[in-house]
Amino acid sequence: MDTDVLRAVLDGRFADVRERARREFPADLFGPIDHLGTAEQRALTTARLRVLADLGGHELGFSPRHGGGGSPGGHVAQFEVLGFGDASLMIKSGVQWGLFGGAVQALGTERHHAELLPPLLRLDLVGCFAMTESGHGSDVASLGTTATYDPAAREFVVHTPDESCRKDYIGGAARDADVAVVFAQLVTGGERRGVHAFVVPLRGPDGADAPGVRRDDDGRKAGLNGVDNGRLWFDSVRVPRTALLDRYAQVAEDGTYSSPIASANARFFTVLGALVKGRVSVSGGAISQTKVALEIAARYALRRTQFARPTTGREPGARDRRGEEVVLMDYLAHQRRLLVPLAGTYALSFAQQELVDEMDDLLRVQLAGGDPDPARQRAFEAHAAGLKVATTWHATRTIQTCREACGGAGYLSDSRLPQLKADTDVFTTFEGDNTVLLQLVAKSQLTAYAQQFSDLDTLGTVRFATRGFVSALAGRSPARSLVADVVEAGRAPDDLHDRGWQLRMLAERERHVVESLARRVRKARSRPDQEAFEAVDGLQDHLLLAGRAHVDRVVAEAFAAAIARTEDPAVAALLGEVLDLHALALLEAEKGWYLEHRRMTTLRAKALTRAVNEQCRRLRPRTEELLAGLGIPRHWLASSLVPGSTAPGTTSPGATA
Amino acid sequence: MDTDVLRAVLDGRFADVRERARREFPADLFGPIDHLGTAEQRALTTARLRVLADLGGHELGFSPRHGGGGSPGGHVAQFEVLGFGDASLMIKSGVQWGLFGGAVQALGTERHHAELLPPLLRLDLVGCFAMTESGHGSDVASLGTTATYDPAAREFVVHTPDESCRKDYIGGAARDADVAVVFAQLVTGGERRGVHAFVVPLRGPDGADAPGVRRDDDGRKAGLNGVDNGRLWFDSVRVPRTALLDRYAQVAEDGTYSSPIASANARFFTVLGALVKGRVSVSGGAISQTKVALEIAARYALRRTQFARPTTGREPGARDRRGEEVVLMDYLAHQRRLLVPLAGTYALSFAQQELVDEMDDLLRVQLAGGDPDPARQRAFEAHAAGLKVATTWHATRTIQTCREACGGAGYLSDSRLPQLKADTDVFTTFEGDNTVLLQLVAKSQLTAYAQQFSDLDTLGTVRFATRGFVSALAGRSPARSLVADVVEAGRAPDDLHDRGWQLRMLAERERHVVESLARRVRKARSRPDQEAFEAVDGLQDHLLLAGRAHVDRVVAEAFAAAIARTEDPAVAALLGEVLDLHALALLEAEKGWYLEHRRMTTLRAKALTRAVNEQCRRLRPRTEELLAGLGIPRHWLASSLVPGSTAPGTTSPGATA
Repeated sequence: MDTDVLRAVLDGRFADVRERARREFPADLFGPIDHLGTAEQRALTTARLRVLADLGGHELGFSPRHGGGGSPGGHVAQFEVLGFGDASLMIKSGVQWGLFGGAVQALGTERHHAELLPPLLRLDLVGCFAMTESGHGSDVASLGTTATYDPAAREFVVHTPDESCRKDYIGGAARDADVAVVFAQLVTGGERRGVHAFVVPLRGPDGADAPGVRRDDDGRKAGLNGVDNGRLWFDSVRVPRTALLDRYAQVAEDGTYSSPIASANARFFTVLGALVKGRVSVSGGAISQTKVALEIAARYALRRTQFARPTTGREPGARDRRGEEVVLMDYLAHQRRLLVPLAGTYALSFAQQELVDEMDDLLRVQLAGGDPDPARQRAFEAHAAGLKVATTWHATRTIQTCREACGGAGYLSDSRLPQLKADTDVFTTFEGDNTVLLQLVAKSQLTAYAQQFSDLDTLGTVRFATRGFVSALAGRSPARSLVADVVEAGRAPDDLHDRGWQLRMLAERERHVVESLARRVRKARSRPDQEAFEAVDGLQDHLLLAGRAHVDRVVAEAFAAAIARTEDPAVAALLGEVLDLHALALLEAEKGWYLEHRRMTTLRAKALTRAVNEQCRRLRPRTEELLAGLGIPRHWLASSLVPGSTAPGTTSPGATA
Repeated sequence: MDTDVLRAVLDGRFADVRERARREFPADLFGPIDHLGTAEQRALTTARLRVLADLGGHELGFSPRHGGGGSPGGHVAQFEVLGFGDASLMIKSGVQWGLFGGAVQALGTERHHAELLPPLLRLDLVGCFAMTESGHGSDVASLGTTATYDPAAREFVVHTPDESCRKDYIGGAARDADVAVVFAQLVTGGERRGVHAFVVPLRGPDGADAPGVRRDDDGRKAGLNGVDNGRLWFDSVRVPRTALLDRYAQVAEDGTYSSPIASANARFFTVLGALVKGRVSVSGGAISQTKVALEIAARYALRRTQFARPTTGREPGARDRRGEEVVLMDYLAHQRRLLVPLAGTYALSFAQQELVDEMDDLLRVQLAGGDPDPARQRAFEAHAAGLKVATTWHATRTIQTCREACGGAGYLSDSRLPQLKADTDVFTTFEGDNTVLLQLVAKSQLTAYAQQFSDLDTLGTVRFATRGFVSALAGRSPARSLVADVVEAGRAPDDLHDRGWQLRMLAERERHVVESLARRVRKARSRPDQEAFEAVDGLQDHLLLAGRAHVDRVVAEAFAAAIARTEDPAVAALLGEVLDLHALALLEAEKGWYLEHRRMTTLRAKALTRAVNEQCRRLRPRTEELLAGLGIPRHWLASSLVPGSTAPGTTSPGATA
């Protein structure tokens, strides 16, 4: 099998961007930083960001009229390649060109684009994204910072009413940012209009803090110490009327408020939806960092031996072979620890690819000044939320496993695993807390379900039970239709490797969980008001299960669709084996649910465990190919556990630094 | 309920040692260190170790004839209290007085005790424990360092034959240690005698490296950077014949080898068994650090609000209550995240208490120069291995959950959660890799099973199925017998809260898993030699399951026994509720196995989920009491997330350090 072809399949639509980055990123862009003090880490990361600014790639996300490349998917692809390197640099670039630049692009209009995009792309203007407040994280609608319009001065007055409303954890706020996009409650004519975004300079021309602006440092963090997170307070800071990023709402000189979106609620979600690219990027970055950890741990396991090969002592010569030690990767327990998450990482990569492609379609419309189809946009947002949850928890779990699989050696900074672990940890709670996001996913499933239920009367129940449900929440590509056919064909197989059966099991679980959830929600809503909280809160674990079931299904289907698109038969065959391992291990992990709901016999549940073990054995000899397919240049691994993986000039961090 | 009584119950037999430590440890002993560079962290930790040396407590673990206190359990209790503070200090003290001092005490004889114990207790002699080699971690029997006896000079020649045999990850080896206990293959008269321990000076009187000794630094690590881990090489280093710690084997002047233990294998395991206190200490330290993380996250969740209380909008006045935000701890999902691991932490604490009490009994015999009952010693070692696995994985998982439950605030060093996470991470792989240890536990279960099987003919099968199996592997205290009665009484209850049913379910699972494992092992052993590895390796996941099932059962029983011992009815009642949550959540998590093996109906499985939710609700109002029971002085929490928990002079680490 040609691993270049495998890599190209994983690279997908934006393969050229990825190849260029692999070729052009200089060798010293990614050296380790965790042996340095906080100030040095920040300085080095900022210097590296400047190198990136000159190399380009980030401009792909922006409007071509102002120096952009008009390829939002390409921008995310470049970000994903950055994820093979140091995460501080990746997140720093994400703050500048994803969050800050992205907000200007998505929420601003021509005036803002013309004025801000060229300097921010060149890094002549460094910005930050000031949304979260100390007291208001997940609940963005309740932000407390105000921006009150003063028609006499034709200015907004940005103000922090109390300590719970200081901006917090803002990347760039401690040091580097010259300007902030501040999310605040817009007040005009004495009326609150909800959360809007404003461009607020943090520094005067002399470099000192702008009048009324106070900034503080969040200090040392678990990881990502190359990023200068901090806090911001605004004491009646005045900005011109044009500071409002006014794509979705305008304030006239006299203070009259207008918006093309009538409902305040719809406007709020439109604004948040326009920023969803950040969430997609975090997913991609989490997958990339996971790949690095897996490649380090797996390559170590392919070399490292421990314990002599056991013998039953029954054969002559057994004693002679005793000295021969076993390679870690030959142990079943080790295969389960590393190959199952490797299969999961392949699955998530294809789901991410599908997500980025869809995002690219939608954002191209937005870049051209149009509005994407609302239904498609909503489905995409739910998809993005769910995948962000899956990829970031997968990263946290998998990188932890990789660390443990390398024993004491994996605890040393030299191995790079500690940095990968510490940096990615926060991914599960930033850009949307996973527990909150998963409930959003479940709520969008309920909406989709209600929608479908009303269609049911015409379509009939049988179609709903199988194909209808699958295609309703999935995309609409030809490969996806193919998958729906596969699912429909797989009815009552006697083969655990039957793809139709595997996918149908996942779809059935989602359907059942959502249906029963819908029933319980209806019941809870009929309760008197004083019991409403208890009633709705009692469904939280059911909501979380629904969200997980959805993502599990979507990810497996995306993998199946990618295989259906793969032309090289050897590559497709290998990917089929990988999806088998992923699907079987997932069903094994969820066997409790299947047995409880009588969707699986006890014999079949036991057979699953054997099948996962066999599939591990079958993929064991393909480990090297699967690692090569990840497409990480060897010297970017930068780990003492992988010979030849540390770039010249980036030797192991000294102990006394 | 009196939380002082609850704390006393958790403090157990060595309550006085714990109380003294809480009273006498100075306030600044535990300030954060992770904002410092590696060299500064090490220097501060070494300085704190000196404070500890003067305070005392560590001497409890040693023979009274040489300044020790003769209370090994008290020593571990003091170590556990240290676990509420900074883990670098705890581990540093563990290296000096647990590993190094412990090896001298357990493996040495009078000459070594008289010469080494007094100065090492005073910290005038700093030592390290040089067992692990770069190429030999879990497989201690295969260590490559040699100690060859030269009868002419009456010396041992300690030598590192190749790079795979350099000592690695050795705490103290990078900087502080003056002397090492080196584990090496003893060679005398041209014959290898297996692994033995030798006292080897690392420095000459002038402080320079001793001739032939080379040391290097392991550098920065994920955590525990206050401990100076390093590497050691020995180039034909000569030490006197008396350097051999000769309790279990002696070499006469002419090189004649002798040992009271005939079998080399038995000797090896006796030596390792004598060192098991280190493993017990790690368990205790892991539990303590978990408690700190849980108290920080839970106290944050009791204050922090997010999202307004939902309403169904059906009642008048509903809008007025909308502004009222919900405390995080009131959400079911948050209760499941924090209260279930809190219940698990209580369970593990009682299992640890039982383990330390048993260790104390056994080590008092050893300190008095005797040999503990071999069967009891073996059972204790298996128990210690299993509990170390359970407590350290519980720590890794729980501290991660605590971090996530605090969102961005939990990612800041100020919260202390990053340090807790980074420090405890290595616990899962040091003092025995968890995956390897769990297989040892399973092997000892198989031995116990085979033993019991031969007893069965006389006792009859019915007894085996219930009480026999439980009491065979458990301890023999009166409270334990009481628990066995409870288990026997619980046959076919219709109440999920029936303690007998809960414990019987856990015992049944273990019995079934071990029985089927025993059958498969017999079959695998009958295979021809060339298939032996595959056959035995194919059982690895079954072995791991057996180990887990054993520990799950032992821990729950220990909790039940502790409740049986508790005299205060209010405290016993609360602990009963906590054990209910622990047992129900455990059975829920394992429902796949129970359903698969037809030990649970699908209705009962669904009822379990509801019961866990209800039990969370029931314990929610008791959270503060349960936290107070943990017995952590408020100012030791040292977290920005808990008001009033940072000691004076230990303010938040600066960002630019």
